[in-house]
Amino acid sequence: MSIFTLHKTASDCAARRGTLQLPHATVETPVFMPVGTHGTVKAMTFEDITELGYRLILGNTFHLYLRPGSGRIANFGGLHRFIGWDGAMLTDSGGYQVFSLKDLRKITEEGVRFQSPLDGSYHDFTPENVMRIEHELGADIIMAFDECPPYPATWEYAHDSMLRTHRWMERCVAEHERLGGDASGSLLFGIVQGGVYEDLRQQSAEFMGSIPTPGIAIGGVSVGEPPEEMRRVLDLTMPYLPSDRPRYLMGVGTPTDLLDSVMRGVDMFDCVLPTRIARNGTLYTSQGRVNIANAKWANEAGPIDPACACRVCRRHSAAYLRHLHQCNEILGAQLATYHNLHFYARLMEGIRSAIETDSFLTFRAQCLANWSTDEEKK
Amino acid sequence: MSIFTLHKTASDCAARRGTLQLPHATVETPVFMPVGTHGTVKAMTFEDITELGYRLILGNTFHLYLRPGSGRIANFGGLHRFIGWDGAMLTDSGGYQVFSLKDLRKITEEGVRFQSPLDGSYHDFTPENVMRIEHELGADIIMAFDECPPYPATWEYAHDSMLRTHRWMERCVAEHERLGGDASGSLLFGIVQGGVYEDLRQQSAEFMGSIPTPGIAIGGVSVGEPPEEMRRVLDLTMPYLPSDRPRYLMGVGTPTDLLDSVMRGVDMFDCVLPTRIARNGTLYTSQGRVNIANAKWANEAGPIDPACACRVCRRHSAAYLRHLHQCNEILGAQLATYHNLHFYARLMEGIRSAIETDSFLTFRAQCLANWSTDEEKK
Repeated sequence: MSIFTLHKTASDCAARRGTLQLPHATVETPVFMPVGTHGTVKAMTFEDITELGYRLILGNTFHLYLRPGSGRIANFGGLHRFIGWDGAMLTDSGGYQVFSLKDLRKITEEGVRFQSPLDGSYHDFTPENVMRIEHELGADIIMAFDECPPYPATWEYAHDSMLRTHRWMERCVAEHERLGGDASGSLLFGIVQGGVYEDLRQQSAEFMGSIPTPGIAIGGVSVGEPPEEMRRVLDLTMPYLPSDRPRYLMGVGTPTDLLDSVMRGVDMFDCVLPTRIARNGTLYTSQGRVNIANAKWANEAGPIDPACACRVCRRHSAAYLRHLHQCNEILGAQLATYHNLHFYARLMEGIRSAIETDSFLTFRAQCLANWSTDEEKK
Repeated sequence: MSIFTLHKTASDCAARRGTLQLPHATVETPVFMPVGTHGTVKAMTFEDITELGYRLILGNTFHLYLRPGSGRIANFGGLHRFIGWDGAMLTDSGGYQVFSLKDLRKITEEGVRFQSPLDGSYHDFTPENVMRIEHELGADIIMAFDECPPYPATWEYAHDSMLRTHRWMERCVAEHERLGGDASGSLLFGIVQGGVYEDLRQQSAEFMGSIPTPGIAIGGVSVGEPPEEMRRVLDLTMPYLPSDRPRYLMGVGTPTDLLDSVMRGVDMFDCVLPTRIARNGTLYTSQGRVNIANAKWANEAGPIDPACACRVCRRHSAAYLRHLHQCNEILGAQLATYHNLHFYARLMEGIRSAIETDSFLTFRAQCLANWSTDEEKK
């Protein structure tokens, strides 16, 4: 089932402009997905998300499986109905979360046994039951259960882990088919692994490309490696991915990461960054990030970013945002999150427009120059 | 300056229907004001507040004086500009908050010296500088600096305290006049005290009535007394208040309190209750309060209140609200607060309509009967 229409590829880089046709929404790519871990993009109403132009958000299988439970969500007719969201959704497989549990999990060929961080109870994630859980959630896109090796990992570890991910992918496909396949309304994407090793990335990309899924993800980045390593892994991987399917870079990233990955041909992104740092008082502006706690904002009667047209910047001063942050007020989180997601939405809009006019590299260079005053740059 | 138009008084009780003409808004009474302690009604955007129909909100002088500082707010052109709210505002005087500090304050005839709970620094609230602070904030209605005696208080304590409040009122009036008086755009209201004692309440009501302020408040209730005591104090006080001015009952209350106080002729209310308990998971419904943490909601696919037409009940199930509460998600606080403030707004709307058709007592009886299944009733 082809869900992807490729409209244009840049003449001077690999940036692509496309459209994803998902059961609950039509989504223009490159696209960024806000993360709604527990079935809520933190501090945002669904009216906010819609107003910001997002039609595709992410939910975390691991968290939703533990609370409120995927069976309970299935009884409601799935995640869309449970949370009251009529747009499209993607669920990850929980792989990243269970492997992050470290001392609380054990990996075998069968799958992963782990202890709930909530109550210590034991649970098994196998390719088969993760597929069942994701079908219970019923997102538009569901991710295969993979093993996400840590950074750094030796070639041997990354190799064994990748081969296991491939075997698990075959089990995921079989179970997904048994549950109705893509016709069920949930489209399965595979995940390329292979660590930082060129031969493994090629092998994994070719393996995942050989399975006729409607899309392919690149996993195992954004796991603590330096920024240039992520770019190198992309360079190693992208040439081996089929060009007629959407490419989803998982867990990425900063605005600069998005530009650099789009340049390499990535179509889809998700990341907790803009929402998480908003709650800590870091805001994106056309001049780079700023920390709203900084005393210099205390008397600033203008908006945090005079170039921003978002609802928050039109109404509120930087001083008020700082005041809310200092008082630890919920509205501070709400406004900062809205502003950052507006920034990301406009960035993706700018990226898409630039690709359409074949001026992406110019757009990218301009963004990077504008952000050069970034307060938090190392 | 008359700001109040009395349209109608019920034929069978003292309930009244009026209009307040304030510098930033026209407000229909009886009215409930949401509390925006730090210049934000917790978890609500100003778009939410407007959508809910509120045009008059409260700010706390004590909190805003300490953070971000009233001088800083004055530099912004006042509280409206600082927080980005074009509706009307009322500021209390901080009296209630400084007296609640107990071990951190000392009362003299001059005023109250207190220590900031934030950093231990010393501050003085006197009638004169509270007037200056409130003028810096520039709300539409500013409250006189009073002493709010605790409950219970002896007649002697309540008497001395009331006389001091009267002397402070005269100093407030003088300083307010020096600062431009009501023509400045901030209308001064006095506050009746006198504890639970009939002679003191009469004396205080007559004293405050003798000063030509555009409105009068009843203070010293909602300080820990049993519910019936608040009603008794109202019965003692209301007959002595002039009928041509709005009567504001400070810090009240529950929906039942509102009905019982409107019945006795109160026009204005404020209370943190609907917003505070929302954040703890208590929601108002047409059948009484419910606790969203209760396991019985875990599988409820319908809204928390099928009779409610608010944005939250139209979109979200009770099970989802419970899930957000269990996960301590910010959206849980946002949705519960919105719902409760919608409940209060519709209650006040119902009250005003009922008075217009001279059916207030019937409306009140119906509400009390409907709420009889209240889960949290003692």
